[in-house]
Amino acid sequence: MKKVVTIGGGTGSFMLLSGLKSYPIELAAIVSMADDGGSTGILRDELGVLPPGDVRQCLVALSETPDMLRELMNYRFGNGGLEGHNFGNIFLSALEKITGNFGAGVEEAAKILNVRGEVVPVTLSNTRLYMELESGDLLSGEHEINVSKKFEKVGVKKVFLRPRPKANPLAVQKILEADLIIIGPGNHYCSILPNLLIPGIAEALRQTKGRIVYNCNLISKRGQTDLFSLEDYVDEVNGYIGSERIDYVTYNMHKPSAQLLKKYQSEGLLVPFPNDRPRNYRVIRADILSDKKSFRSKEDKIAHTRAFIRHDPEKLAKVLVMLLELEGYESILKDIV
Amino acid sequence: MKKVVTIGGGTGSFMLLSGLKSYPIELAAIVSMADDGGSTGILRDELGVLPPGDVRQCLVALSETPDMLRELMNYRFGNGGLEGHNFGNIFLSALEKITGNFGAGVEEAAKILNVRGEVVPVTLSNTRLYMELESGDLLSGEHEINVSKKFEKVGVKKVFLRPRPKANPLAVQKILEADLIIIGPGNHYCSILPNLLIPGIAEALRQTKGRIVYNCNLISKRGQTDLFSLEDYVDEVNGYIGSERIDYVTYNMHKPSAQLLKKYQSEGLLVPFPNDRPRNYRVIRADILSDKKSFRSKEDKIAHTRAFIRHDPEKLAKVLVMLLELEGYESILKDIV
Repeated sequence: MKKVVTIGGGTGSFMLLSGLKSYPIELAAIVSMADDGGSTGILRDELGVLPPGDVRQCLVALSETPDMLRELMNYRFGNGGLEGHNFGNIFLSALEKITGNFGAGVEEAAKILNVRGEVVPVTLSNTRLYMELESGDLLSGEHEINVSKKFEKVGVKKVFLRPRPKANPLAVQKILEADLIIIGPGNHYCSILPNLLIPGIAEALRQTKGRIVYNCNLISKRGQTDLFSLEDYVDEVNGYIGSERIDYVTYNMHKPSAQLLKKYQSEGLLVPFPNDRPRNYRVIRADILSDKKSFRSKEDKIAHTRAFIRHDPEKLAKVLVMLLELEGYESILKDIV
Repeated sequence: MKKVVTIGGGTGSFMLLSGLKSYPIELAAIVSMADDGGSTGILRDELGVLPPGDVRQCLVALSETPDMLRELMNYRFGNGGLEGHNFGNIFLSALEKITGNFGAGVEEAAKILNVRGEVVPVTLSNTRLYMELESGDLLSGEHEINVSKKFEKVGVKKVFLRPRPKANPLAVQKILEADLIIIGPGNHYCSILPNLLIPGIAEALRQTKGRIVYNCNLISKRGQTDLFSLEDYVDEVNGYIGSERIDYVTYNMHKPSAQLLKKYQSEGLLVPFPNDRPRNYRVIRADILSDKKSFRSKEDKIAHTRAFIRHDPEKLAKVLVMLLELEGYESILKDIV
């Protein structure tokens, strides 16, 4: 079986893995460990555990247990001392406490949840995300970065992790052995880049023989990446990898209805694709937009923070699996921009 | 397969079910719903759920999942906002919230935990245990009763539940269909009697064709049943059933070492058996005492509140299963006192 690795975190990875899991491939989901908001943040502070939130979403996406257990993992308590806590986060934290380390806890969780493939925390170090702005200001922690509007005006100089984390050796191994590595979609600064900020991960991405595909976000995030074009995203991701390693980029060519765009423009604007320039990667333009009208589907109950203008898991997975098949035919390809 | 029903709660049921589960019988564990202390009490108050603690212990006893998941169910958080909460209680409360009722939540939990047999809450009504003393004082709630020393001096007039609970129809059905019904061991006022206080349950016990065996506690509980002999226990249980329905009583004849007795006499005294009186039940005297010296076994990690002078699950189960086999030979039995 072909080996496919995804790199991301949270809702983007949930969507991506939900689509990929029905294909006969060997899947490993490498997950960001920078989250420090909400239920996850409280558990980190109070119990001294590593952040369970992103890992939880990937486990649920790949779980082959009955819906009830998957729903339970995402259940959020509404009142009392447990208010705001997510059951799955508590579950992972308890397993970390019992086994003595987060990696072993995730493995036990994967067994209990009958997970197809592997979920691999990008690091087992306790680390924090920082963002330095062009103004010299420093934002501390994923949550502060996510809610701050400061960098909308002044621009981002760089993001970094402190204390310096070590790459999870299993994540490095998975990247080196992969046939295809899929980066994104997901929050650029808080879910995607925190993976690449770990030296061992960037190095593995530079060394691997596997192809790298980048799923560009469909919409820029208001207050974070407002003016980013597709090229800006790719350049930043390549920049943090330390080499122009991205082989393919997926780009949605199916425009959402004007009505939908208007309704959800507060979230951000469609990422523009200036298609008249030379570049070192191929852009795969396809209809990968979700056209689900109902936002109350069972799937949404599981990933309730998903954007309204969003990828369709099945459409995107089909395009990505096609890339696996393309190998060997690449030189004769003309119709991928 | 013979149908066996156990009636109790908490640690006593955990021990009993651990022994019974390896036999080819159809097991249903009816569980008291009067607990309102500790983690369970907080969840009841804050989330408005039914008490999960006793049900949890029975589910764990009958679970055939790997040890890790069973250990997880009993894991207790040591700090932060989750301090003192038991993971399994949180698990059951979340399932109750998702399914909308406690009974359905327990069924889902049983599937997830791969439970052999059934765990049946004695009632699905939200009710509270009260104790009226001979002095007229009223103790309110299982927790208050359990910690109070008041009735040591003045004596207990009666225990009752308010608001009046309805029997869980499934519990009634199980009792009516059973070949053997096993009551106890367990805390007399807080785990055993609260089952019999429910009118539908007492009625089913009066009506069933099944034999009823009562596992008398090994030691009286200091401050609660100090002066009780075996006969006092049986009389009270029969009294709350409303008929002399108990067919057999198990009584441990293997005396613990003087050293152990002395060491743990603060817990209570051995229950005396005045064996020179006529009675309407047969007393099965056997060695059913645990002789495990280590109190740090894996089993103890799971049921850490167990008394030190306690039943041996395997020995007790053997005696009880023997009773199932005895049917038809009863009239020729002479050697059961």
